[in-house]
Amino acid sequence: MLEGLIVSIDAMGGDNAPDIVIKGLEHFLTHEGEGRRARFLLHGNEAELKALLAKCPRTRERSEICHTDMKISMDEKPSQALRRGKGSSMWNAIADVKGGRAGIAVSAGNTGALMAMSLVQLRPKQGVRRPAIAAQWPRKDGMAVVLDVGANVEADAAQLTEFAILGEAFFRALYSKESPSVGLLNVGSEEGKGHATLQLAHERLSQSQLDLNYTGFVEGNDISYGDADVIVTDGFTGNIALKTAEGTAKLIEVFFKEALSGSIWSKFTTGLNALALRRLKKQIDPRRANGGVFLGLNGIVVKSHGGTDAIGFSNAVNIAIGLAESDFQTVISERLEALHDEDDNIGFIA
Amino acid sequence: MLEGLIVSIDAMGGDNAPDIVIKGLEHFLTHEGEGRRARFLLHGNEAELKALLAKCPRTRERSEICHTDMKISMDEKPSQALRRGKGSSMWNAIADVKGGRAGIAVSAGNTGALMAMSLVQLRPKQGVRRPAIAAQWPRKDGMAVVLDVGANVEADAAQLTEFAILGEAFFRALYSKESPSVGLLNVGSEEGKGHATLQLAHERLSQSQLDLNYTGFVEGNDISYGDADVIVTDGFTGNIALKTAEGTAKLIEVFFKEALSGSIWSKFTTGLNALALRRLKKQIDPRRANGGVFLGLNGIVVKSHGGTDAIGFSNAVNIAIGLAESDFQTVISERLEALHDEDDNIGFIA
Repeated sequence: MLEGLIVSIDAMGGDNAPDIVIKGLEHFLTHEGEGRRARFLLHGNEAELKALLAKCPRTRERSEICHTDMKISMDEKPSQALRRGKGSSMWNAIADVKGGRAGIAVSAGNTGALMAMSLVQLRPKQGVRRPAIAAQWPRKDGMAVVLDVGANVEADAAQLTEFAILGEAFFRALYSKESPSVGLLNVGSEEGKGHATLQLAHERLSQSQLDLNYTGFVEGNDISYGDADVIVTDGFTGNIALKTAEGTAKLIEVFFKEALSGSIWSKFTTGLNALALRRLKKQIDPRRANGGVFLGLNGIVVKSHGGTDAIGFSNAVNIAIGLAESDFQTVISERLEALHDEDDNIGFIA
Repeated sequence: MLEGLIVSIDAMGGDNAPDIVIKGLEHFLTHEGEGRRARFLLHGNEAELKALLAKCPRTRERSEICHTDMKISMDEKPSQALRRGKGSSMWNAIADVKGGRAGIAVSAGNTGALMAMSLVQLRPKQGVRRPAIAAQWPRKDGMAVVLDVGANVEADAAQLTEFAILGEAFFRALYSKESPSVGLLNVGSEEGKGHATLQLAHERLSQSQLDLNYTGFVEGNDISYGDADVIVTDGFTGNIALKTAEGTAKLIEVFFKEALSGSIWSKFTTGLNALALRRLKKQIDPRRANGGVFLGLNGIVVKSHGGTDAIGFSNAVNIAIGLAESDFQTVISERLEALHDEDDNIGFIA
């Protein structure tokens, strides 16, 4: 019998699984997770996992292997994964949350399959039309949260208002901020900008008497460089924004290296500049923000980036444990109920 | 009578007009534009412009002032600008293109007002449902072109295919590339991703027998870091992507400065690192890509960033002149006709 919080792990999900998964857990237990009572259910191939655990004693001590030969590939379509994937490491990791054997699940596997399986097994919480994927986003003074970044290609005004509730509770749970501000992503900050769905969501959020610190429309540049803690958008726009930012950061890194290597000074200053580059990279390190969280389900599932390394996976586990230990699922339920009571009172129909 | 290409300038448009406008023209004439035969019609307040021209002899020599007291403010709504703005410097600059007195117009003023006035005066080209704004986008090896970045909050499949034609011709005119590749911005590169409008546009572009190098879906990170020369999207998504990239670049600049200033080494290496920073900034300098171009109208209008400086305005003028001297308006007309003939043949309805 495992003691303390139990985290269910899809040990076979991700580009470099199960290797980085086990190394990630070991990293977690020797760093942020040192002294935490968390334990792990490892879903995957027993022989492979045993071989890896032999070199990761802390993880071995706190884990139980749940063998399965079946795994979901990174390019499997969600519908295929659902049809053929019952009993896979991904499916079983989620099933542990559904069955109450684990408090939370983590997977670096295929996002679409993970969302489909989470939806089918955990179902949306009462009062949630569709779950959303929330991402952490580096900015000047910490992190912002952006949602949805990919679960819903389209979202109506009622969904957007639900995302606001979900994201705000998520931000509070992660960063313990009393009243995080919430903005709605648009092409201008003035009223009247954007399409009808955004107008309607804006009106609904502005009218609300719920204790929600809604600050109005924000623009793309405000995600990295504005004041809103939580940025609400549909999954299409959020996904494009997230990947555009990744591409921009990668491009600047290339330019930066070129700028350093091209100068004649660089011969003398390589070491010093490398130091600056390391510090910069640490600040914009995507691994720091690794862990997209599925919000709005009866149970929490954390999606690590598929191509991440052990440190990134460790961060995803750290986020997962922080969430599982918070009361944010209860907060979400209460606030959604209040939102929908208010919807009824004002006769809101999206 | 002015000789050579004539550029009509809204001298009062932009946060720092008319100052940076006149200084921008002077910069152009002493740098990229040295020896060019271009001449300028300056729309704005005669007294203010004369005072500025006194210090900019090259511009004075090549300009004619067209006096008006009226100007459009940066926060004026498009509908207001249309109602009240006839005879303003912005309106008159566009009127010169319509009337054939100028080959192209440039303004750093309010984007919405400029588009509204351009639409009313110049009208969409035959075969264009709605014009689009195209932006240049820095990437590894030069520039990409992204459109629409703000003229159309929504775009159906027929509009997206037209944007592909407009953007491709624009890219060829700017960078003299024989067969630029065209991608459609989506949340995944696999077929079947994204919403129905994108599916339909993808199918239409894939089927086309026109000589268009369409390469399929691209994702947000591909804009800065992929292979497509022209990225097609609706104006909502394009605007969010553009501003998200700006915010990311700005954030990284702040982090970079902090990384340099925090280390004890920096005391010794400030000068050297400043050199690297200057080189980096030059590469990601938004002024290099300044100049959103309105495509699909009977006449070309270039929108400079409202907050730009003289160098940025000079770049916008440089782009404008390059376009006015190319045959891309004719190319667009021919290709749009071919596109719509094909539409009729295959029975395409968006």
